[in-house]
Amino acid sequence: MKTYFFGVSVIYLVIDLILLKCRYIATFNTREEILENAYIGIDEKSGKIEYIGKEKPQKPYDEVIELNKHVVMPSFINAHTHVPMVLLRGLKDDVDLHTWLNKYIFPAEDRLKATDIYYGALQGIAELIESGTSLFIDMYFYEEEIAKAVMESGVRAILSRGVLDITENRTPETEVKKTLDFLAFLERMWSSNLETRDRIFFALGPHAPYTCSRELLILMREKAEELKKKLNNVWINIHVAETRNEFEDFLEKTGKSPVSYLDSIGFLGSDVLSIHTIWVRDEDLAVLAKNKVIVVHNPSSNLKLGSGIAPVPKMLEKGIRVLIGTDSAASNNRLDILSEARLAALLHKGITGNPAILPAKKILRMLTIDAAKALGLDGLLGSIEVGKQADLVIFNIKKTLQAYPFHDIYSLIIYSLDLRAVEKVMVKGRWVYDNGQFLTIKNIEKILERNAETRRRIEDELGI
Amino acid sequence: MKTYFFGVSVIYLVIDLILLKCRYIATFNTREEILENAYIGIDEKSGKIEYIGKEKPQKPYDEVIELNKHVVMPSFINAHTHVPMVLLRGLKDDVDLHTWLNKYIFPAEDRLKATDIYYGALQGIAELIESGTSLFIDMYFYEEEIAKAVMESGVRAILSRGVLDITENRTPETEVKKTLDFLAFLERMWSSNLETRDRIFFALGPHAPYTCSRELLILMREKAEELKKKLNNVWINIHVAETRNEFEDFLEKTGKSPVSYLDSIGFLGSDVLSIHTIWVRDEDLAVLAKNKVIVVHNPSSNLKLGSGIAPVPKMLEKGIRVLIGTDSAASNNRLDILSEARLAALLHKGITGNPAILPAKKILRMLTIDAAKALGLDGLLGSIEVGKQADLVIFNIKKTLQAYPFHDIYSLIIYSLDLRAVEKVMVKGRWVYDNGQFLTIKNIEKILERNAETRRRIEDELGI
Repeated sequence: MKTYFFGVSVIYLVIDLILLKCRYIATFNTREEILENAYIGIDEKSGKIEYIGKEKPQKPYDEVIELNKHVVMPSFINAHTHVPMVLLRGLKDDVDLHTWLNKYIFPAEDRLKATDIYYGALQGIAELIESGTSLFIDMYFYEEEIAKAVMESGVRAILSRGVLDITENRTPETEVKKTLDFLAFLERMWSSNLETRDRIFFALGPHAPYTCSRELLILMREKAEELKKKLNNVWINIHVAETRNEFEDFLEKTGKSPVSYLDSIGFLGSDVLSIHTIWVRDEDLAVLAKNKVIVVHNPSSNLKLGSGIAPVPKMLEKGIRVLIGTDSAASNNRLDILSEARLAALLHKGITGNPAILPAKKILRMLTIDAAKALGLDGLLGSIEVGKQADLVIFNIKKTLQAYPFHDIYSLIIYSLDLRAVEKVMVKGRWVYDNGQFLTIKNIEKILERNAETRRRIEDELGI
Repeated sequence: MKTYFFGVSVIYLVIDLILLKCRYIATFNTREEILENAYIGIDEKSGKIEYIGKEKPQKPYDEVIELNKHVVMPSFINAHTHVPMVLLRGLKDDVDLHTWLNKYIFPAEDRLKATDIYYGALQGIAELIESGTSLFIDMYFYEEEIAKAVMESGVRAILSRGVLDITENRTPETEVKKTLDFLAFLERMWSSNLETRDRIFFALGPHAPYTCSRELLILMREKAEELKKKLNNVWINIHVAETRNEFEDFLEKTGKSPVSYLDSIGFLGSDVLSIHTIWVRDEDLAVLAKNKVIVVHNPSSNLKLGSGIAPVPKMLEKGIRVLIGTDSAASNNRLDILSEARLAALLHKGITGNPAILPAKKILRMLTIDAAKALGLDGLLGSIEVGKQADLVIFNIKKTLQAYPFHDIYSLIIYSLDLRAVEKVMVKGRWVYDNGQFLTIKNIEKILERNAETRRRIEDELGI
């Protein structure tokens, strides 16, 4: 055990080796093993899992944690959000999409300052953490502020500066510059804090085919190829075919659907995260499958905005990889991946008429190992295996009434439990959440009050 | 203030007058007022609200409770459940309906004993309470045991003995006898405990048109008419048009849909609660509207079992009254009316493509005043008004991250909050829940363990 001193009065203890004694471990390894009464040994320095087994390891551990009422599983990947939009939560619900965007969301966003985004991001990250999430994929502006919040809070994120050039005073060049400025910011962060190198990843963020010119989209694809030469991972994050209007407008103007249009300009590939992607014909699904595109499903947001329901079972059938995201708290209004997962599990059974479709285990795979694989990060995380990073969510399965009785761990988590059962979250071997306490995000109450104040300011400015 | 002594060591305090000082009161009165910084005076003996106002009443109150971070609203009505089925939670998820019913649910139910039902009901009621529910509508067997659990736990319920005569050894007469035996049981309860008279109500429970003979259904309608002469309220509770199979079988065998068949035998009326009611044509909706039938929508269960989605917006448009229920924990797997309400709010926006449909306030009305009106109980409950019973749910709107920031109380409750925000529940002027503690259901941990044991016994007996 080592003790580090920061400043005068703050003592931060780093415990090198942590041993978890677990009632259940849902490993999500290749054999999908569930281990009972087994140990997980974690090296906090490297953040890695170094032991898994039924026997207590001989080697001494600095701390042994009894989890005898618990299920330990890989923590979740929330594949799409705009995390600072917690600031705009419920602004405004139950209105049509046009009014929502033009009267409320866009004018409010115009009034957000960099520090607002930073504090919004901290709250958003806290909400992600308390639902068991350790990695999220984000697209927004002032993305540097979000990166700072991610660095400080100890979680992982794939971050993209959202860009679009259909607005006044924007060109493909201005948008590429913003993207590269953001990358330069991340590069400085990676140099000054080595620990962030496997926690913060870069992605490109062209907003949508209807808000980005053909030229900008092509530039983004070119940048992606170029950046692959120096970065281990590069993704392109884009909203595609979210609304019927978008689909119909594209057909009318280009003779192509949004998906076929993106294909025609050589934009698609296995590095593309196609977000929402509701309005797709069978031929579009074939195009997505052929290009190995990853789809991100956001059921709450899609329902709430009246956009529709992505044909997820059909996508999976065609071999398309589908991940799950909450979207932002403006459209969701939660960043609770458990609510989202439950909704995804229920919704497609009702739509297809097949109660056996998208079983709980598959949904949990979409939040863990399948997501890690799709993102090319399965060497790092997504399952509980020796050598992988210790990114864990720990459910107390005796804490809520809904945990009694239970039959199957996967069903328990997806259909019965809620946030009350999420007891601890670990990222990279470090506890970030324990029994309602945020261990890396300090003064959460002050952050909440500041964000409420920001919102009051915006509502005042907008006169709403 | 009076003090009652039960036995030697238990002291039960009855405080006569309670004054709530509330940050917000969502009254659901005819003007749909939201009062800020106002008082609610409650007479615990009568269970009634006797004062509402901005001024502190002059009259002395025995206890004043500060609710300065809270929204107080009428507690919820869960319009359909089978409460002891918490015992069968998650048995078994993600299988087809036929296997689910025939391999798991029916054989398990055959093994449930009366005391199992009693303890199952207590747990189920606890789950209802913690989601802010004070009145539920139930249909099951051993309904007497459920009545006992309701009496003891202090909540309200409309209870029906589920009956059907398509099984061996059952006839319309055996089923009518069961129904009347249950009524006789309730009548003894009402006589021996006057306080239960406005807490426990009787309903008839023919299971479904496909499990009840024409003769039994007609007898049930006749009984309803007969019983109206001596009871204030009589309802008929029936599952109608839940699955596509049911709908198609009916069309094939009778030339009529389930709804039109029930109409043709004179079964329908404003006292009928038509549960699920997914497979309906426009002409069926017209029949339901004409007969003033009440529909109960159970979206989680309907999705999970692959049954489909009831056309709720269309029903409301045609003037049909629609209430919301969770169905049982076997198909839901929660008795959490907040989850259910959120799902109902989101689902129909997505299906209709209209984000303005079923706004949060309307959904909350369906759980409170609209439900009370449909059931003819709006003289008693459903809104916060002087003279009505004090059935209240109190949300702490500073407790969870999701409560920051907020714009609209109704949206806050439906889209953002979850069970963590439900702080207190009062029924008939008496606290039944406070900060995670069940005040009327004692030894909840023992009940949970007993129920888990029951489940293990059943699984062992069934070899699953």
